Parts: sequence; structure tokens; C-alpha cells
Amino acid sequence: MIKVIATFTVKADGVDAFLGMAKELVEKTVEETGNISYEMFQDNKNPAKLFMVEEWQSREALDKHLSSVHFTTLVPQMGKYSDNEAAVNVCNKVL
Amino acid sequence: MIKVIATFTVKADGVDAFLGMAKELVEKTVEETGNISYEMFQDNKNPAKLFMVEEWQSREALDKHLSSVHFTTLVPQMGKYSDNEAAVNVCNKVL
Repeated sequence: MIKVIATFTVKADGVDAFLGMAKELVEKTVEETGNISYEMFQDNKNPAKLFMVEEWQSREALDKHLSSVHFTTLVPQMGKYSDNEAAVNVCNKVL
Repeated sequence: MIKVIATFTVKADGVDAFLGMAKELVEKTVEETGNISYEMFQDNKNPAKLFMVEEWQSREALDKHLSSVHFTTLVPQMGKYSDNEAAVNVCNKVL
């Protein structure tokens, strides 16, 4: 199992637009073969700090996601509302 | 449900010691009332980048954890092996 934790810092006035696109991304991604979960979390005190927490069955499934039409079209648009590039960490569970 | 995502940047030569203490923290925390999950993930390319991903039934349960003996003794020790203070984000699921 592969875990991905993507950390976003969104512009304060772009949170709603960002979440609108993220909603479409989530809806399409959870339909993908090999996706176990794909959820977005928002910091309680700072609504501009968001995390996509993902689980994939394999690296192959993740790679397919990264080249999907919905990923390659929506993520660059989401980037326009971000203060900096998302920090994307592909991880293994160690504990 | 409350999600906590804690991001750690550990000193390169301190990863094993950090994980040893984190293991004890996980073992004690998953026994707590109100804890749903408490897992640690390590970046595939940078072993010094680690994440604790937590789920709690309530803010009350999380607060109790933060004042537990295992938390207040182990976390400061883990901090000695970190390059900077952990970024701790208490979050809600939005998508």
C-alpha cells in the first residue's frame, strides 16, 4: 500500500475555488482502479492549509492517476490558487 | 471525527532513534479511549520526512492524549532528533 500526503497552502481568497476543483478531482479519482481512498482535510484554524491524504494499491495505480486527464487538467488549475507548489510526499507506513 | 496531520523533519542521523520513540508512542496511544487510528508514514525518497496521521473521535479525546504521560514524556524527546518543531495541523474532512 502506498500513502500519499500532499500539503497545500492556498491563497486566502482562493479557498472556495480550490475546493470546487478538488471536489471534482476527488469524485473522479475514487472511481479509479487501484485507489483505496482519496480524502481532503482542512486545518481548523487556517482554512488555507489543506491536505490530500491518499491510499493506492500500487505505484502503478498511482502513476496511472498522475497521468489521468482529470489529474493533468485539474491540478494545474488548483495550483493557480496556491501560494506555492504543493509538497507531495509518497510514503510507506512504518508504524 | 478529528484528523491530525503532524509533519516531522528529523535529523538524518536521528531517524532510527526518533522511530524507536514513536513506536512506543503509537503503542500507547492506540490503547487510548477515543483514538480511532494513529499511524506513522515515511517519505519514500527522504527517510527524514515523517508524518503522524491520526483520527480521534472528539476534541476531548485529543486533548486528553495531549496531556497523557506518554505524550508529554516521549514527544519532547522525539523533538531532540528533529530539525525543527513539528507542524501539527488539527483538521476536518472537507472532501
